[in-house]
Amino acid sequence: MGVKTRVQYIESLKTAKPDVYIAGEYVQNVVNNPFFRTSINHLGMGYDWANMAENESELTFHSPLIEEKVSFWTHLRQSTAELKQMVETIKRFSAQHVCTMCMGIGLCVIWATTYEIDQDKGTEYHKRFKNFYKKIQKDDLRFALGVMDPKGDRSLSPSQQEDPDMYLRIVKQLKDGIVVNGAKMHTTSAPCMHYFLATPCRVLSEKDKEYAVSFAVPIDTDGITFITRPAAGPVKGKEFESPVSSKIGFVECLSVFDNVFIPWENVFMCGEWNYTENLIKYFSSYVRMAKCTCVSARTDLITGIAALAAKSNGIEKASHVKHKLNDMIISSNIGWGCALGSVYESRMHPSGIPIPDISISNSGLYQTRLRFVEFLGTLQELAGGIVTTMPIENEYVNEKTKPLMEKYLKGKEGVSVEDRIKIMYLIQEFTASNFSGYLMSSAICAGGTPETNRVEVFRNYDLKEMVKYAKALCNID
Amino acid sequence: MGVKTRVQYIESLKTAKPDVYIAGEYVQNVVNNPFFRTSINHLGMGYDWANMAENESELTFHSPLIEEKVSFWTHLRQSTAELKQMVETIKRFSAQHVCTMCMGIGLCVIWATTYEIDQDKGTEYHKRFKNFYKKIQKDDLRFALGVMDPKGDRSLSPSQQEDPDMYLRIVKQLKDGIVVNGAKMHTTSAPCMHYFLATPCRVLSEKDKEYAVSFAVPIDTDGITFITRPAAGPVKGKEFESPVSSKIGFVECLSVFDNVFIPWENVFMCGEWNYTENLIKYFSSYVRMAKCTCVSARTDLITGIAALAAKSNGIEKASHVKHKLNDMIISSNIGWGCALGSVYESRMHPSGIPIPDISISNSGLYQTRLRFVEFLGTLQELAGGIVTTMPIENEYVNEKTKPLMEKYLKGKEGVSVEDRIKIMYLIQEFTASNFSGYLMSSAICAGGTPETNRVEVFRNYDLKEMVKYAKALCNID
Amino acid sequence: MGVKTRVQYIESLKTAKPDVYIAGEYVQNVVNNPFFRTSINHLGMGYDWANMAENESELTFHSPLIEEKVSFWTHLRQSTAELKQMVETIKRFSAQHVCTMCMGIGLCVIWATTYEIDQDKGTEYHKRFKNFYKKIQKDDLRFALGVMDPKGDRSLSPSQQEDPDMYLRIVKQLKDGIVVNGAKMHTTSAPCMHYFLATPCRVLSEKDKEYAVSFAVPIDTDGITFITRPAAGPVKGKEFESPVSSKIGFVECLSVFDNVFIPWENVFMCGEWNYTENLIKYFSSYVRMAKCTCVSARTDLITGIAALAAKSNGIEKASHVKHKLNDMIISSNIGWGCALGSVYESRMHPSGIPIPDISISNSGLYQTRLRFVEFLGTLQELAGGIVTTMPIENEYVNEKTKPLMEKYLKGKEGVSVEDRIKIMYLIQEFTASNFSGYLMSSAICAGGTPETNRVEVFRNYDLKEMVKYAKALCNID
Amino acid sequence: MGVKTRVQYIESLKTAKPDVYIAGEYVQNVVNNPFFRTSINHLGMGYDWANMAENESELTFHSPLIEEKVSFWTHLRQSTAELKQMVETIKRFSAQHVCTMCMGIGLCVIWATTYEIDQDKGTEYHKRFKNFYKKIQKDDLRFALGVMDPKGDRSLSPSQQEDPDMYLRIVKQLKDGIVVNGAKMHTTSAPCMHYFLATPCRVLSEKDKEYAVSFAVPIDTDGITFITRPAAGPVKGKEFESPVSSKIGFVECLSVFDNVFIPWENVFMCGEWNYTENLIKYFSSYVRMAKCTCVSARTDLITGIAALAAKSNGIEKASHVKHKLNDMIISSNIGWGCALGSVYESRMHPSGIPIPDISISNSGLYQTRLRFVEFLGTLQELAGGIVTTMPIENEYVNEKTKPLMEKYLKGKEGVSVEDRIKIMYLIQEFTASNFSGYLMSSAICAGGTPETNRVEVFRNYDLKEMVKYAKALCNID
Repeated sequence: MGVKTRVQYIESLKTAKPDVYIAGEYVQNVVNNPFFRTSINHLGMGYDWANMAENESELTFHSPLIEEKVSFWTHLRQSTAELKQMVETIKRFSAQHVCTMCMGIGLCVIWATTYEIDQDKGTEYHKRFKNFYKKIQKDDLRFALGVMDPKGDRSLSPSQQEDPDMYLRIVKQLKDGIVVNGAKMHTTSAPCMHYFLATPCRVLSEKDKEYAVSFAVPIDTDGITFITRPAAGPVKGKEFESPVSSKIGFVECLSVFDNVFIPWENVFMCGEWNYTENLIKYFSSYVRMAKCTCVSARTDLITGIAALAAKSNGIEKASHVKHKLNDMIISSNIGWGCALGSVYESRMHPSGIPIPDISISNSGLYQTRLRFVEFLGTLQELAGGIVTTMPIENEYVNEKTKPLMEKYLKGKEGVSVEDRIKIMYLIQEFTASNFSGYLMSSAICAGGTPETNRVEVFRNYDLKEMVKYAKALCNID
Repeated sequence: MGVKTRVQYIESLKTAKPDVYIAGEYVQNVVNNPFFRTSINHLGMGYDWANMAENESELTFHSPLIEEKVSFWTHLRQSTAELKQMVETIKRFSAQHVCTMCMGIGLCVIWATTYEIDQDKGTEYHKRFKNFYKKIQKDDLRFALGVMDPKGDRSLSPSQQEDPDMYLRIVKQLKDGIVVNGAKMHTTSAPCMHYFLATPCRVLSEKDKEYAVSFAVPIDTDGITFITRPAAGPVKGKEFESPVSSKIGFVECLSVFDNVFIPWENVFMCGEWNYTENLIKYFSSYVRMAKCTCVSARTDLITGIAALAAKSNGIEKASHVKHKLNDMIISSNIGWGCALGSVYESRMHPSGIPIPDISISNSGLYQTRLRFVEFLGTLQELAGGIVTTMPIENEYVNEKTKPLMEKYLKGKEGVSVEDRIKIMYLIQEFTASNFSGYLMSSAICAGGTPETNRVEVFRNYDLKEMVKYAKALCNID
Repeated sequence: MGVKTRVQYIESLKTAKPDVYIAGEYVQNVVNNPFFRTSINHLGMGYDWANMAENESELTFHSPLIEEKVSFWTHLRQSTAELKQMVETIKRFSAQHVCTMCMGIGLCVIWATTYEIDQDKGTEYHKRFKNFYKKIQKDDLRFALGVMDPKGDRSLSPSQQEDPDMYLRIVKQLKDGIVVNGAKMHTTSAPCMHYFLATPCRVLSEKDKEYAVSFAVPIDTDGITFITRPAAGPVKGKEFESPVSSKIGFVECLSVFDNVFIPWENVFMCGEWNYTENLIKYFSSYVRMAKCTCVSARTDLITGIAALAAKSNGIEKASHVKHKLNDMIISSNIGWGCALGSVYESRMHPSGIPIPDISISNSGLYQTRLRFVEFLGTLQELAGGIVTTMPIENEYVNEKTKPLMEKYLKGKEGVSVEDRIKIMYLIQEFTASNFSGYLMSSAICAGGTPETNRVEVFRNYDLKEMVKYAKALCNID
Repeated sequence: MGVKTRVQYIESLKTAKPDVYIAGEYVQNVVNNPFFRTSINHLGMGYDWANMAENESELTFHSPLIEEKVSFWTHLRQSTAELKQMVETIKRFSAQHVCTMCMGIGLCVIWATTYEIDQDKGTEYHKRFKNFYKKIQKDDLRFALGVMDPKGDRSLSPSQQEDPDMYLRIVKQLKDGIVVNGAKMHTTSAPCMHYFLATPCRVLSEKDKEYAVSFAVPIDTDGITFITRPAAGPVKGKEFESPVSSKIGFVECLSVFDNVFIPWENVFMCGEWNYTENLIKYFSSYVRMAKCTCVSARTDLITGIAALAAKSNGIEKASHVKHKLNDMIISSNIGWGCALGSVYESRMHPSGIPIPDISISNSGLYQTRLRFVEFLGTLQELAGGIVTTMPIENEYVNEKTKPLMEKYLKGKEGVSVEDRIKIMYLIQEFTASNFSGYLMSSAICAGGTPETNRVEVFRNYDLKEMVKYAKALCNID
């Protein structure tokens, strides 16, 4: 059955032998390694959720591909209604759990692009990809989506770089497969996944042909090295002081491919540079829609935290507090409204999947992500300077200092000191920690930047038509 | 057939004898009166549009109520898909023609409310309203929607006002009808309409029972006086200097009801104060959705004007110009995305019509309407000081001064001086005239104010749920 | 004595015979012409103010140039303290009277530039200018400052324009003077002044040498034609409906120079293109400082109006109203703080006058002017839709309609209907009229645009130094 | 001589025996304790600066109090010109070194308040304070300024709190001194200072009389316990990965007073509740002026970092990059302009010191501090996602992974990988670390919050005068 359990997931990791470096050490299996604890737990939470009876209708589906029950993370959405249900799930789960781990949405992009290539060229990419997809579904596997290349000098195209490896590329085509070289940046949690799935990160020209490559490989394939950044939380969990990052984590990799062999059955694009424009467009459409939802949900989350902080300080009725919460709610709704609008304006792709509107999601995301950063400041204002000046957990467990903290950190009657400290630590985690850096970066740099949003919005707007209307209004032919 | 022509519309006005004051004069028929020229023309444009072959699928419908073809302005939308099509029409027409005259949407609100009252109380309001609705459809009639009362002291409820007439009220119930007294404010184009349709403007309590009144009457019913403000444009058209307001106009009325008798068949609410809460909620839901669309469309419109102005000044490639246009486009898309989102989240009312989501539209509208005001400044910046310092039309038709204007108002090669002047006059109209005052007010005060948006957004947000999530995150029970 | 009266001012205008066109008519004397009534009254107000005992210390000065008492409008500020006192006066008078008519500040710029040229080249420009200045002081004269040229294609320099007259230029140098041709745009109230004072509007290169020209001439000099735009207010005053623009006005001119002869004694620059860079820098420094003050003062003014409107509607205690007023006050203070900051950072010019800092004033102005536009929307929100839907004055003087207006336009107890109407008409004038167009344009386009502010701020910032600091922080050599 | 060296400073700390808890441990001397390394180094830097020849004119002064040379940190500014010079120093040093440690400015407040009390009541507070001040100057001592109390329930005054110790208070008056109980929050670097100087944090009423207390005591006075939060940087310095927080640090204390005896000679206020209003006003005036300068300087600092990041990514010429830098520069200038404006509008206090204007600094600070938070997001956008996904320092010193980082983290030609990594780590420190939390909190919560700014701006604005002007404009009596 295509819905596995956390235990099965962890078992499946034990046999993998990826080459991993983290914190200066070489690691060959991530299970039980403390640096991967939170990332594995986070992915494990997804398996747990899918097995809870209360989530059945929301997180499990019948897949027409394998005619079995599959989970939220592997299901292929084939209608606008299914897409809407997906963003509703992301909205609800991310508002509760910070992250729904929705990056599987990238699969649709390859689904659509391989279909187009096959239709035009009689290739077999789509068939191969469908097989890969079925395997993913059957075994409820997870994969890292490797999109971003190192890029080198951003003013040059891949083929113009001094070092040709600055974008992942095909170095050889063999009878039974291809050999690739290069690297992918920012691959989240890769060593805790089953597969690495690579796609180009930009529109390519004919000269960049060798960079038009997409494939999937098991993460412990020979020649792949993951140079891994530890997650933002403490290596040893501190649920009191770091309640969120002690449970969930995002290790990030520089994933290096040193002449890695990919058998043809796992190759989904090999030189078809002129399909990268659509690939990028579909990718943007999906990612912006998801990110719009995600930032909206995280804005809900910090709205709740802000309200809680205000209450524990006894200022929840102040008009300026309500004003600030109101600003947050409006921003969350704008992100959510635009996510829904982009779904509603989806167009069906011939391969049988909906492609969301790109203009609406980019616009909503631009607005809501910039405000998210502002709201981190708002959180600190509502909580007060205490967030960055209060004693750390060690003092609260020291019997000499705890009574003094109990006495002097008392806020409003009805809120225990311990609860107030918990709230303040939560806000510290969200605004004044390595984890807050992740939150800000996730809002600003993940899924394109605000500037990318602007560019895509401008490019997709029919300015000429509007100029035509303006001319007509003032009687210019 | 339920789709009339402009000629039929104007004919139908000729027999009406409303009591109208305008510019200090008493008028008893508005046809041929110069002060009403643009308002009548504007409404006439709607009739024209509906009769154009190219608009047939967009502006005409089969009405299941009368089993005839009806127009955009009288059709009752009975599904989310119909609602979506409606906002698409508003978006496209308002971006071209400034205003789609969509206020007919108010009918849905009474449709739903009368249904609820009848279901609960066995009354006949819905049946009466359906009859009225059919008449509107059959004869393709227009009506003024009278919602806002004078309100007096805003900190007091209707029944607490010193003068009981500060809200329109029932003064007598007779065997064959009711008598009402009071006034409605801001009724657009009322004397050019066929009917006056009144509804309460706020939630009422039991003490305000006599103010819970809704009805329809012909505009020339005895006892109604319209004190009318001229439209913003010139009385005698100047298509060169005032290209828009010489064609379309919005006369506005203080509509006074002096003991006006309303027969029962036209009474749709009479004392059912406890249904005003829903009435207001439905009204807000519809109006915010429409206004969100409208401001988005007008933002498109001024984006086109801004691009045209930039071009005529030869600065269209400057990065700051593109930046400003980009801001406008993002704002337009946010309004549009949230309008669509609110439609997408509609819930069907038992009376058979969809009620749009209120939170999303209020949020999008809040954002986009405030930016609209900013963009009026942007328009002036891109056009330059010339907008408010250039000579007026009289100088351009004077043979002594025209050659000097031809010489010195030349901008970029390829744009004639006359065209440049037309563009600058258009921007003058949009930013520096009585008409620009209408535009700003329409963005800020019509369909609720930004503050109303904030209040409704806050009221409809589940803050408790978010606080619950926040507590769970930091392990507070 | 260098302080004249309104009567003397008007007398002095009677003998002038400028060539003026307005509203399609030729006019040869502006006194008693209704189109110039408000402009003359406005200038007359300045003469009145200077003669009031209460203003003596603020508006009159001992001039070391002529050793006589002179007025605010002709005094040359020769210290930072005098400059500070000047902006304090502008701040106070503009907050009360909309405009202090401070454009005389432009004189300093020519003062400094002519000094530099004479020092370097042994010319006599400064001596001539001093003589002109003394005359202005002795007779308390007013002058129009003609800076902006028509400019044609903005992407081309003056000498590259197809029509060489798109910038005002020297066409001939004679023994006793020069001949100039071209035009100046946006010259406020020129036909009501005594002199026309011209300077270049941009930095010029050697090729543009003939455009490097500055001079003063009586406004009725042969060859000058003023194509004049009527002021924004009603031609026949309506103090009830248009309380401000019925009293003060800004006629604007396209001032055409058709081979106008300027005697050497009135020529202050003639080909010295390489001094235009400083001239523009000094001009910007003065104008941004003054505009920063002006927008701050007008923000004060609309803050007062907003508070008055809120009170008359009975909402003055609502937290959102206070919030909005607070935003206005902050913006006003920022403009004012930056104006003061720019004065405080003045550097003394060798010619004996202080030159204000250019970065601070541009930054403050950028912020405060953009917010000013927003606040026009705020004004409408606080006043309500009534601003653009209420009946006009004619209805309030009609005995049939006045009682109905008296009844239904009643707001809060304690504010008479007449007062409420006056307030709403004032807000109409400030947000929904030709005059509001002037206000917006004056905020956005006068004294450079927001984009100009950005450019000047960027150009004057020592980014390299900051990059050096950043490198040092992260230990990069 | 009143200017000591770093060595003398450290020597002076060695004899102190304060009761300190940090990271769960009890510490009795901070010298050589790793948790205090950066705080001591930071303070030591100040001593170093003062001894550099190049800083002599900027950081050393002749003190009229002791007729000796003293340093920046102990000098009493007795004129507006001295105040201006002080903010210029803060601006320059904070832009280079993050923090100028200017909190000594708090001394002025007690200087002025004690003067007032003595004048009115014939007390000796000012004389005592002057003696204390002289000692500080003579020995070039540092002190922690303890202002904020724990506050408990913020809706209650000190005397209304359930626990009377929620604000520091006088519990006993003895013959030779007083006894105080309670605590102060947020006392930066207290255990590395020589003295603790306490003042009330709010305006007090007569009922709160016992809370009106100000005094100075050596930090190792019996009964004082410092519960200390470690600084944001790593305990063991990592100059590569954490270049700033490895050098400078801000330990923060909850400073508990358990029946601490203060001899009369060190008591500067004892029950004079009605002088707290002025004390708070003076305090705000000084702190806002300094904070305005500080945030401006830090905005300069991150502008430099942003420009450096853009350059290392090869995008420094993109128009959007310039646009973003421009926004930063404008914001910095506004803060700086308003700081200068507030100095310029200082009023001399009878005690001989200038009190800066409170409205201007609050307004500028409100604007610039909110934007500072936004700009942290901008920094991340310009640097890219790499900031939070790149490997940590350990991988760069591992010979297996370093070559791969050298290859794939290469950016633009001309910037070494090591330099690029340094820049990215610097940005990580400023946007994605515990230290970034300090930066945000310092911008938002230190020196009052944005909301405090709003309140003070509103309270100090003469709204009535503006309403009077508005009435006059529309002819209302």
